Amino acid sequence: MKKIKGGVTSAKGFTVASTAAGIKYENREDMALLYSKKPCHVAGTFTSNVVKAAPVLWDRRIIREEKRDVHAVVVNTGIANAGTGKRGYMCCEKTAAKVAELLGIDENEVLVGSTGVIGPLLDMDKIYKGIEEMVPRLSDSIEAADKASCAIMTTDTHPKQSAVEFEISGVKVTLGGMSKGSGMIHPNMCTMLGYITTDACISSELLQKALSEDVVDTFNMISVDGDTSTNDTLILMANGEAGNPEIREDTNDYYTFKEALNTVTKELARMMAADGEGASKLMTCNVINAPDMFRARVLAKSVITSSLVKAAVFGNDANWGRILCAMGYSGVDFDPENIDLSIEAEGYDRMLIYSHGETADFSEEEATNILKQDEVIITADMKNGDCDATAWGCDLTYDYVKINADYRS
Amino acid sequence: MKKIKGGVTSAKGFTVASTAAGIKYENREDMALLYSKKPCHVAGTFTSNVVKAAPVLWDRRIIREEKRDVHAVVVNTGIANAGTGKRGYMCCEKTAAKVAELLGIDENEVLVGSTGVIGPLLDMDKIYKGIEEMVPRLSDSIEAADKASCAIMTTDTHPKQSAVEFEISGVKVTLGGMSKGSGMIHPNMCTMLGYITTDACISSELLQKALSEDVVDTFNMISVDGDTSTNDTLILMANGEAGNPEIREDTNDYYTFKEALNTVTKELARMMAADGEGASKLMTCNVINAPDMFRARVLAKSVITSSLVKAAVFGNDANWGRILCAMGYSGVDFDPENIDLSIEAEGYDRMLIYSHGETADFSEEEATNILKQDEVIITADMKNGDCDATAWGCDLTYDYVKINADYRS
Repeated sequence: MKKIKGGVTSAKGFTVASTAAGIKYENREDMALLYSKKPCHVAGTFTSNVVKAAPVLWDRRIIREEKRDVHAVVVNTGIANAGTGKRGYMCCEKTAAKVAELLGIDENEVLVGSTGVIGPLLDMDKIYKGIEEMVPRLSDSIEAADKASCAIMTTDTHPKQSAVEFEISGVKVTLGGMSKGSGMIHPNMCTMLGYITTDACISSELLQKALSEDVVDTFNMISVDGDTSTNDTLILMANGEAGNPEIREDTNDYYTFKEALNTVTKELARMMAADGEGASKLMTCNVINAPDMFRARVLAKSVITSSLVKAAVFGNDANWGRILCAMGYSGVDFDPENIDLSIEAEGYDRMLIYSHGETADFSEEEATNILKQDEVIITADMKNGDCDATAWGCDLTYDYVKINADYRS
Repeated sequence: MKKIKGGVTSAKGFTVASTAAGIKYENREDMALLYSKKPCHVAGTFTSNVVKAAPVLWDRRIIREEKRDVHAVVVNTGIANAGTGKRGYMCCEKTAAKVAELLGIDENEVLVGSTGVIGPLLDMDKIYKGIEEMVPRLSDSIEAADKASCAIMTTDTHPKQSAVEFEISGVKVTLGGMSKGSGMIHPNMCTMLGYITTDACISSELLQKALSEDVVDTFNMISVDGDTSTNDTLILMANGEAGNPEIREDTNDYYTFKEALNTVTKELARMMAADGEGASKLMTCNVINAPDMFRARVLAKSVITSSLVKAAVFGNDANWGRILCAMGYSGVDFDPENIDLSIEAEGYDRMLIYSHGETADFSEEEATNILKQDEVIITADMKNGDCDATAWGCDLTYDYVKINADYRS
């Protein structure tokens, strides 16, 4: 397993292009097109929100209901195409049809993704023009992947990509992806927009199994603001161009593939949490020695979701009472007298702040120094089992309020 | 039913005092003592947080397990006495014992309440001194109640009291109370600290029933920041001094009593939401025509809890997409194409902003004017039943972050 520079074009046979279609922003790239000449098996996880954006309905139909292979994904930022009713769904169909026409494929082999403001309809003339500009520019270069990862951003402050190389039965396989945050992030079954490509040879069913198993500990374990978006979509495409023998369930190859997938999804998830709207630092919560995975996950996520914990971390305040409180209302039962809470950061030892039902004897000054670092790690030792989970969030800052108080204006 | 000026001393036979014990603040009253010479039947609802502050454990034992009548409640602000283990519980016992000694009652007839920072132990010398100062000052005056309602505040910007007079079988009965917010407010089975007194004659069992039935639509329907405190406590005391025939279950008298209780709890709940940390306005969400009460409550609470809705309301932005999104991830299933969303405020007509799955044709300027008012009312018409629920919250502002980033410093 080797981490490499790159993203959606790292795997063989994938090309990408982006353009400034003027959907919301002037002079900023806001569309991306991802294409594999060879058809791809595809897996997807989507928002659990009852209110699903039109592109989510479009993609789910193709992936989950009709179980088709696909060739392309077209994404726009600026407008979410959510809360747009039947006319919004028609926009997806028209968008896919335009891509299909220019690439010589079927419209049902084109996935669609949108992110941005809920409500407005897409201006199809701009979308058509964007697609026409992108098709001739499709490239398998790292630069094209870099540009695409920027084009899909909204309030993100930097692009998010990750890629790895690994071997399946002696054959080199590559997997890489891109994703975007950064507000309305509290994924449930997946995250905002994430696109991962691989040249591995693997069936659709196993691809979906790997993705579904993976997200519970990666994309579903991050939160910026507790709001689960209408558009959350994570797509994993495999075109088989690596030429490896097909990956089978419950084999070492499968576990290698899952490890590769996990390396990329975890890195993207961490990047999204760290780049949450207004965030000044990444906040990681490890819950260790819990009785089961479910409880470990719920506890970890409750801590990183708490507004009061987030504000305390912003203020470099080792306010363990708020951490304990957030665990206490998570819905998971535990004995508050029998857990340990500690904090740590790179370059600093783990420091115990709460134990035996009371505050630990710690230096507030040293604690403040730890909390000032770029990644603050909170560890809750439940001392009641052997299951561990990690969740990632960010601090709550003035900028979060600023960004969201005038997002539409 | 008549609203009157007053609070915990409005009902016959209740006296109160407050003092500056120097627990956290200098020169600010931070303790209150409530006393009825006649023993009171008492009902209580407490935090659902697994981590329960010592005073919650003390009060629960007396009210729920031992079902005792009580005479007094002593409250301090500044320190929550939570996360303090056995030593914290000992503080409650010592506090109650001191009050009992000076008033000539049993220590198990004294309830204890604390609010403030989680972690530190109470300084018992200060508590003793405070109690000694308060006992001789006990008074049934409105001024004493006013001062006590100020003494129990933490980050509240103003005190919260409410009182009503009503008749039970021709006898005048009074019920009044005080409460405090204003952060870590997302009550579950009750709120931060609330104390309500009445001179009604009613059994402990029926008192508890009335309170438990009431909170689901009042204190449990407010949220400031989604954090359920370790200290949430709502106490209702009845000393029977009005001399009314005992209120029996399922009688008109009982419904009259419940209406009086609801008038006071609803007013206190609204005051707490409006005075949420950093809040610039009250945000009310009515969910109407839902298939059942449970769904109506969950939907309403999800809207007022959403950070993105709260930030949009702060920014006077009629961003209905965020309202729809918050309903969508509430866990309640509904058809987003078949609901109406509207906003209104005092002096402005209700304005439809979303209908038939798409944006309504409304004036953004007029919407902004509505959102600038002190109370913004969001109504979601589910068109799928006849159950209505209301939740109260507040906007998310820079000041919320400011208050919570340096709460301990």
